[in-house]
Amino acid sequence: MRLTRYLAFGVAFSVFSFPSFAEKNIVSNTQKENARALMQTALESDLAYDIVESLTTEVGPRLAGSEAEKRARDWGVALGKELGFDKVSVEEFTMPFWDRGHLHISLTTPYTQPLYGTALGGAGPSKERFDAEVVYFRDIHALAAVKEGEIAGKAAFVDGDFLVKSQTGAGYGPANQRRRIGWQHAQRGGAKALVVRSVGSSSHRFPHTGMMSESKEGWADIPVIAISNPDADHLRRLHKLGTPLHVSLHSTSKWKGDVSSGNVILDLIGSEKPEEIVLIGGHLDSWDLGTGAVDDGAGVAITTAAAVLISKLPKRPKRTIRVVMFGAEEVGLLGAFAYAKQHENNLHNHVVATESDFGARSIWRLVSNVNPEATKLIDEIAKVISPLGIVRGGSDVPGGGPDIIPLVEKGVPTIRLNQNGRDYFDLHHTPDDTLDKIDPDELAQNVAAYAATIYMIADADVALKE
Amino acid sequence: MRLTRYLAFGVAFSVFSFPSFAEKNIVSNTQKENARALMQTALESDLAYDIVESLTTEVGPRLAGSEAEKRARDWGVALGKELGFDKVSVEEFTMPFWDRGHLHISLTTPYTQPLYGTALGGAGPSKERFDAEVVYFRDIHALAAVKEGEIAGKAAFVDGDFLVKSQTGAGYGPANQRRRIGWQHAQRGGAKALVVRSVGSSSHRFPHTGMMSESKEGWADIPVIAISNPDADHLRRLHKLGTPLHVSLHSTSKWKGDVSSGNVILDLIGSEKPEEIVLIGGHLDSWDLGTGAVDDGAGVAITTAAAVLISKLPKRPKRTIRVVMFGAEEVGLLGAFAYAKQHENNLHNHVVATESDFGARSIWRLVSNVNPEATKLIDEIAKVISPLGIVRGGSDVPGGGPDIIPLVEKGVPTIRLNQNGRDYFDLHHTPDDTLDKIDPDELAQNVAAYAATIYMIADADVALKE
Repeated sequence: MRLTRYLAFGVAFSVFSFPSFAEKNIVSNTQKENARALMQTALESDLAYDIVESLTTEVGPRLAGSEAEKRARDWGVALGKELGFDKVSVEEFTMPFWDRGHLHISLTTPYTQPLYGTALGGAGPSKERFDAEVVYFRDIHALAAVKEGEIAGKAAFVDGDFLVKSQTGAGYGPANQRRRIGWQHAQRGGAKALVVRSVGSSSHRFPHTGMMSESKEGWADIPVIAISNPDADHLRRLHKLGTPLHVSLHSTSKWKGDVSSGNVILDLIGSEKPEEIVLIGGHLDSWDLGTGAVDDGAGVAITTAAAVLISKLPKRPKRTIRVVMFGAEEVGLLGAFAYAKQHENNLHNHVVATESDFGARSIWRLVSNVNPEATKLIDEIAKVISPLGIVRGGSDVPGGGPDIIPLVEKGVPTIRLNQNGRDYFDLHHTPDDTLDKIDPDELAQNVAAYAATIYMIADADVALKE
Repeated sequence: MRLTRYLAFGVAFSVFSFPSFAEKNIVSNTQKENARALMQTALESDLAYDIVESLTTEVGPRLAGSEAEKRARDWGVALGKELGFDKVSVEEFTMPFWDRGHLHISLTTPYTQPLYGTALGGAGPSKERFDAEVVYFRDIHALAAVKEGEIAGKAAFVDGDFLVKSQTGAGYGPANQRRRIGWQHAQRGGAKALVVRSVGSSSHRFPHTGMMSESKEGWADIPVIAISNPDADHLRRLHKLGTPLHVSLHSTSKWKGDVSSGNVILDLIGSEKPEEIVLIGGHLDSWDLGTGAVDDGAGVAITTAAAVLISKLPKRPKRTIRVVMFGAEEVGLLGAFAYAKQHENNLHNHVVATESDFGARSIWRLVSNVNPEATKLIDEIAKVISPLGIVRGGSDVPGGGPDIIPLVEKGVPTIRLNQNGRDYFDLHHTPDDTLDKIDPDELAQNVAAYAATIYMIADADVALKE
């Protein structure tokens, strides 16, 4: 990293606080001026792009629990120190490690053709390479109806609708069922393997990985493989022609015991209420197929850069701003649960929490779920950041991002700056999640929104604790 | 295939030839009416899409010389018979077979990361998996300056500019040099392998395969691997940081001796000058990474469908229309050279030749290289097809497509209907060349242009022979 040049930049921040009539506003004029200066600075800054370039290039893919994720933590610590955070620490935790291993999958009947596939997280290995007849299921509902032993020795293929693309990402949850629980039905039916149409929206030939759901009895014994949408289309067409299908498959993915992971924590200590924490962040781990640029190098970069810009103000905001680079998000929010556990005695001091984990397209909406007084504050903040093209969304929208879920469960209030997700699931969890997919201007808009919003929250006089 | 429904469709073709003043035009009014009816029918027909769907689904990828290419010939013969061609034949030839084998390639220093790569056609195998230091070359010119033995035991990586995207595909040739001849310089330098930035324009994580050029001494002894543009960007960034790079590589691609290939020939026999041949076609083989939809299932489908529509006219055009589905185009125009050789005594009767082998986007231009009298005919044809959004381009543009090159060398006149190539090299020679990338409406426009153009040429009174 050679980011020290950012330490020297200067902005015309307002250092004077005139007591005046306007000062009685929930966001003071001085705070608004500082927020606007932060936005302007952010829009002209490459800092976030340089951070995500550094992470994806110098660390690369960072599978949860891997040696690469450890290097990412070292990188995060060095970055935090270089960029002048007041306190930099790592909080470790233990987790089970799932290894993707190697995969061979191809069509063998009616002819040999490679299929572009990848194992789903938590899938089991095959003992050896095998050839199996494919049983076609139109969707997860058809697969769910399978009877015990009904497809013994065969490979189930579960098709499904193409993910509905939307600004909000609303199509992901419903489509995700075949990835999450498909294996439980296939295994009950006696299948030797499950092949799943990728949950992503990419029309390119990339499989979409992601974690399956554990059942009461544990994880899958069988290989579970997602194939790309064009490959799934191909099988669907052959099936419609009435062609018998066989696949050859060998997968070595498996669980490999406990390893260490950790969260990296970068603090800007508050000047007046240092004990009160405004938590922002992203997750440091990534799936291993791409280099984790949009998921979630971008989130790490956006929130770190926003905090760094705030740190250049003449005076620290009143509250502490904490950037958490969560570990092991992809495999079940393990870093998030570890954080909630490790800080359980101090969560009452977490006055608001939010994560950036939905790519790097422009932010278009600000939603919140905070107390009534703080809701007024968020309403005012929304007015200040509206020139960035951001609307005020619901004030009763729970959840600040995946890694905030364990905090929400403990009552921590949330806000969220919603990125436009129109092409997020084209890239998410695929080999195509690489740096070139990030638009530097849109990334800078994200930093502008985060910097202004988080500054105004952290410096507000409003009581954010219940 | 269930294409017989197309045999029954009816169109209001003009069957009467009124001798009139207008009839003295180089294209008669009757011919113009028939051409317009063909265009209208083509725009409403799914025939070409159904053909390319059938080829890509029922045959799949069709590497030159493979068993799959043989199945494609069988498919072509069955299709020609089903669609009512007057004569259907296969002309076989012998060719050397190059097999892609299996590839492992990953970065190992500064960390382990998979690289998305594929062997280039004609590359040699590695004896075993090896790890080698990477020597970075900015472009093919830098690599060309390498001295004998200068990079002994290392892996050369040749970077280069991103392919210039254009409607005409003009960027491909210059970029292609690193793929074509890079290996000769790397091998002279003693490299254990050459890694090449993909020549394609895809910003997605697909490598672009394709044939290398043979040297006087023969083919490459070393593995030559193209990696995707995002992977090449990654290596470039690491190199700029001064990071030493190593790759682990194992490739089993190699030449495997002689096999059979062949061209499939579908004739509509001319009603007045059956000996005079208007040759159209595409190539039946494809690279094996995708399913050969845009390259060149589309060309096969467009030209076959155009001929079928013409065959529904009340009367065959005066000249013979020959659809050639060329074999083994990708590996050096082997089917095309075989055709020129096998028909060498009859090439004077090939009055014009053209191939569709540039994808399936809308045709935007008609160029030609025919005698002066026939140029006037092409000018008139251009006016008839202009409502399809097609302009008349140069009348001195040689070449009717890759497989027409050996015919051009023997003096056969050419025309070409130019598809818009703006995204052709995003798909061409990659795993992403699949059916879903074809727009049915644009494909139908292609058929309309081919059907009208080829009908008017085949039925013209103009002497097309020199």
